[in-house]
Amino acid sequence: MNKLPTTCYKGVRDFPPEKKRVHDFILDTMSKTCELFGYEKYDASVLEPTELYTTKASESEEIVNEQTYTFQDRGGRSVTLRPEMTPTVARMIAASKRELSFPVRWYSIPNCFRYERPQKGRLREFWQLNADLFGVEGLEAEIEVISLAYSIMKAFGAKDTDFEIRLNDRKFLQDIFDEFELSLKQRQQTMKLLDKRAKMPSEEFETELAKVIQEKTKALLAKLDTKSSTDRLDELKTKLAEIGITNVVIDTGTVRGFNYYTGVVFEIFDTNPENTRSLFGGGRYDDLASLFSNEKITGIGFGMGDVTIEEFLKARDLIPNFDSKTQVIIGLLNEKYLLEGFKVAQTLRDANISVEYQFIAKKPDNHIKRALKKKIPFVLFVGEKEIQTGKFTLKDLKAETQFELTEKEIMKFIAN
Amino acid sequence: MNKLPTTCYKGVRDFPPEKKRVHDFILDTMSKTCELFGYEKYDASVLEPTELYTTKASESEEIVNEQTYTFQDRGGRSVTLRPEMTPTVARMIAASKRELSFPVRWYSIPNCFRYERPQKGRLREFWQLNADLFGVEGLEAEIEVISLAYSIMKAFGAKDTDFEIRLNDRKFLQDIFDEFELSLKQRQQTMKLLDKRAKMPSEEFETELAKVIQEKTKALLAKLDTKSSTDRLDELKTKLAEIGITNVVIDTGTVRGFNYYTGVVFEIFDTNPENTRSLFGGGRYDDLASLFSNEKITGIGFGMGDVTIEEFLKARDLIPNFDSKTQVIIGLLNEKYLLEGFKVAQTLRDANISVEYQFIAKKPDNHIKRALKKKIPFVLFVGEKEIQTGKFTLKDLKAETQFELTEKEIMKFIAN
Repeated sequence: MNKLPTTCYKGVRDFPPEKKRVHDFILDTMSKTCELFGYEKYDASVLEPTELYTTKASESEEIVNEQTYTFQDRGGRSVTLRPEMTPTVARMIAASKRELSFPVRWYSIPNCFRYERPQKGRLREFWQLNADLFGVEGLEAEIEVISLAYSIMKAFGAKDTDFEIRLNDRKFLQDIFDEFELSLKQRQQTMKLLDKRAKMPSEEFETELAKVIQEKTKALLAKLDTKSSTDRLDELKTKLAEIGITNVVIDTGTVRGFNYYTGVVFEIFDTNPENTRSLFGGGRYDDLASLFSNEKITGIGFGMGDVTIEEFLKARDLIPNFDSKTQVIIGLLNEKYLLEGFKVAQTLRDANISVEYQFIAKKPDNHIKRALKKKIPFVLFVGEKEIQTGKFTLKDLKAETQFELTEKEIMKFIAN
Repeated sequence: MNKLPTTCYKGVRDFPPEKKRVHDFILDTMSKTCELFGYEKYDASVLEPTELYTTKASESEEIVNEQTYTFQDRGGRSVTLRPEMTPTVARMIAASKRELSFPVRWYSIPNCFRYERPQKGRLREFWQLNADLFGVEGLEAEIEVISLAYSIMKAFGAKDTDFEIRLNDRKFLQDIFDEFELSLKQRQQTMKLLDKRAKMPSEEFETELAKVIQEKTKALLAKLDTKSSTDRLDELKTKLAEIGITNVVIDTGTVRGFNYYTGVVFEIFDTNPENTRSLFGGGRYDDLASLFSNEKITGIGFGMGDVTIEEFLKARDLIPNFDSKTQVIIGLLNEKYLLEGFKVAQTLRDANISVEYQFIAKKPDNHIKRALKKKIPFVLFVGEKEIQTGKFTLKDLKAETQFELTEKEIMKFIAN
């Protein structure tokens, strides 16, 4: 029979234990920091009705039309693997808004799917922290959410000089768009071009923009470029500095490509001079729940992807070397005592010590070799002598010492 | 504009924070117990190539043909949302078998999808603990894996009288099938009928079985029913009893409906007399990796679904009442001190205390009301007096006491 390949589907990842540990380190650091800020975890299915994405709730038309995994279920209903979490959280907030006590602080780290050509930093499946604060109109919300984003970077071990927080206000752009009477489509296309402006030669940028807004191009750019900040952005920057967040710049070129932002937007950039690039970002939206409800629910949040951040951490050597989560190998020396070994293992487990029981009787060195390879710090032997005397040999592989201890003494020792 | 419904797709679940806490309690209890046994967590994408399920690696033909979510991606490749984890783990073990040190202990709690009519205990998306031990042929492996399953039930707070472990050996059935020279198809159909035998009137069972194996029916049943155990099962039961697991019965009627088991199978039953039913189960398989490799890799494991176990826990009142994970609300009393509040919050967070900062200035009672509603045990006020004196009022809502403390004293107090 022909054998199947052992590879996973293109653009997604397998996580065998050594990779799962790194992934969990990233996801757990995000979770832990969100919880320090009082954000509560929520979750939902990766499978959503397609209609959730065929409307303006979604990040961009490109994603919905060309990049979703969309198909019919066996009952003929169109379903989609979520390409992002925002429409889902809007749906869930709208569903329970009567019972919620606003302000609401929620976070989730869902996996999301986009059909793209896999490349460095972009995969077909990625995990993305979504942290959102709903129901606060004032600038306090911006301060808190940016401060949360900043704290996650710090929790990963990043220094202030490793990243930069760029601020802009969509409102300021919208005012200019209003003044020049741009249509909705022109606004979206202009926004998208502005998002790419820093990466384009200025002539090409102007040519492209002229295709969208014709004769208004020069005047609009003149207007845009005279203004380098707004009162609101200045206030935000000053307040962030007062609470100790100083790696912040106001950059009217930071617009973010997504449709739903209506106010302050921010983007965290890697400051690596060889590879300045956006790591993640977010912003304020004012009518995300409008798809589901006539009531307005204001919100501000951000999304932080696992792939980009892992690359950032690797480049700066910020991923720790993990020991095994298993603390002890119990190595059986004599098969006669198989069941005694199970009992010793259980005693330690009852005391919350994690134990791998190597129940195939072997020489001590074999058990030690396995512990070293698996980075398990302790080895405990179970053999004739141990069972007769009630004293077990415990080897501490890091300190390179060994002790003869009773079960009780072992538990005390490992706990310390 | 017509509003979209706020409901999720049929047969899947939303997990707003209050439901997510319950779900995490279930998944974390599984994880924690697996790790006490030295099992390492792995994960993979929910999206797999369809070919992984169109072969005998899969649980049953019914699932593959009628119950999977299968579709073509935008590149024309057939993909499937995993209906179970076993083919994936077989693929991953086969992929890395050169680097692995057997025995290998792995676990995962993937979400899985099956297109079924949603009903009590059965949803279209469920999470399922998969714990497997690879590379051990001896009965030690059965002892360990059953002991892990037992320990998870105990970790959930179940008593020995709440559940029963039923053991059987597929090998013993296979021997009888060999003797009666049943074809592969007859074996599978007979197995499936045997799995349902306890729930059918015996006459109906015999009629159905006769459709499959015709004139062999009576003789085969006679053979089957004379044997109530095997040496191997007796040995297993005795050894489990010696290490303290006594709620075990040998039941040659427990066959499990899945194709890939080749040896000992076990099933954990709820002992509720009004609703005796299978909670979960597992067994030994000998050639799971054969799809990918010519080498045999023996294994034994089990799968434990979140929906069934949650119903069991609810019925026995074993789901705790959860406090918020947030420990303190900082309530702002005077908007003048907005930034000072942010700083106090950060100081506590730096000491690993989780803080929700209620930065809209309100009267103390308003902040207390919110803390009570959200089950957050402490409230700390930030106002004129606090900032001037450096002493903050901390209310302990459980003990109904309050203190005037400095920031340092607060951290000590909450840590204890």
